[in-house]
Amino acid sequence: MKKQEMTTLQDLYVHELKDIMSAEKQIIKALPKLAKAANNPNLKQGFEKHLEETKTHITRLEKIFKRLGESSTGPKCEGMEGLLKEGGKMLEEDAAPGVFDAGIIVAAQKVEHYEIAAYGSLCTFAKSLGHEKDLALLKETIDEEEMTDEKLTEIAESQVNEEALQGK
Amino acid sequence: MKKQEMTTLQDLYVHELKDIMSAEKQIIKALPKLAKAANNPNLKQGFEKHLEETKTHITRLEKIFKRLGESSTGPKCEGMEGLLKEGGKMLEEDAAPGVFDAGIIVAAQKVEHYEIAAYGSLCTFAKSLGHEKDLALLKETIDEEEMTDEKLTEIAESQVNEEALQGK
Repeated sequence: MKKQEMTTLQDLYVHELKDIMSAEKQIIKALPKLAKAANNPNLKQGFEKHLEETKTHITRLEKIFKRLGESSTGPKCEGMEGLLKEGGKMLEEDAAPGVFDAGIIVAAQKVEHYEIAAYGSLCTFAKSLGHEKDLALLKETIDEEEMTDEKLTEIAESQVNEEALQGK
Repeated sequence: MKKQEMTTLQDLYVHELKDIMSAEKQIIKALPKLAKAANNPNLKQGFEKHLEETKTHITRLEKIFKRLGESSTGPKCEGMEGLLKEGGKMLEEDAAPGVFDAGIIVAAQKVEHYEIAAYGSLCTFAKSLGHEKDLALLKETIDEEEMTDEKLTEIAESQVNEEALQGK
């Protein structure tokens, strides 16, 4: 069954912008739960910092929608919905503190990687379409997503996995 | 509501191995649809090649489960379910051929990034737990996932986005 016509690369660009906007809005609701649940103080702080960054990502997207003269509202991002459903189950696990933290890091990194893929594609579209100002904003965001992912790996490798291993 | 006890890092490792096994099995079913639907011959070929690689990823996981003495069966990976639901909608779009290909590349890169995140975490766990043989296998897979992601970006940037732009 064919549906909703998508004729140009610009249409796809707007479609994907709406998708990541929906994803970011879902993440805004999930991050405080992760921050609250985290046992490791650096992990807790990392989630709190990323919540602030995520608010900025939404502001950047709003700027892009305004410039394009498009509404930012679209269908709910089902990819992010699935990832957060999975992450939510991890929050319900009756795990030892270190194991629990290691588990929510996995969930958070899956979310980060969704965003890295989405913003990566948006960057290639903005470049092809000659939307230079959008591209600069999208690049700022993807850099922050990549840094968050690296920071999570660092916390896992230097602290949390060791705590989990020692049954802390 | 707390559920199913997860006491050690080893428990989490097995839990995540089962999750990615479920994800890979879902991908095996989705890739032929992507290969069939792709218009660009290099993209079609890329999906066909990745289908073969994915079969190898499953064989590697089976080796790991066997070594651990664990069953490979677990709950359905809801993260991948959401991603493929989203990708499935892209397959239904009545888009111009280039735009359609650009759209399915986005969907495929979101899938690849899920796997990069999942295998990345599994590598850190295998390392912490001293499962050196597992680590070697997991690294082979993550390398292939990363190469697939890069190849998709290359096809998008060098061919598909240009075709989409020209309304081909």
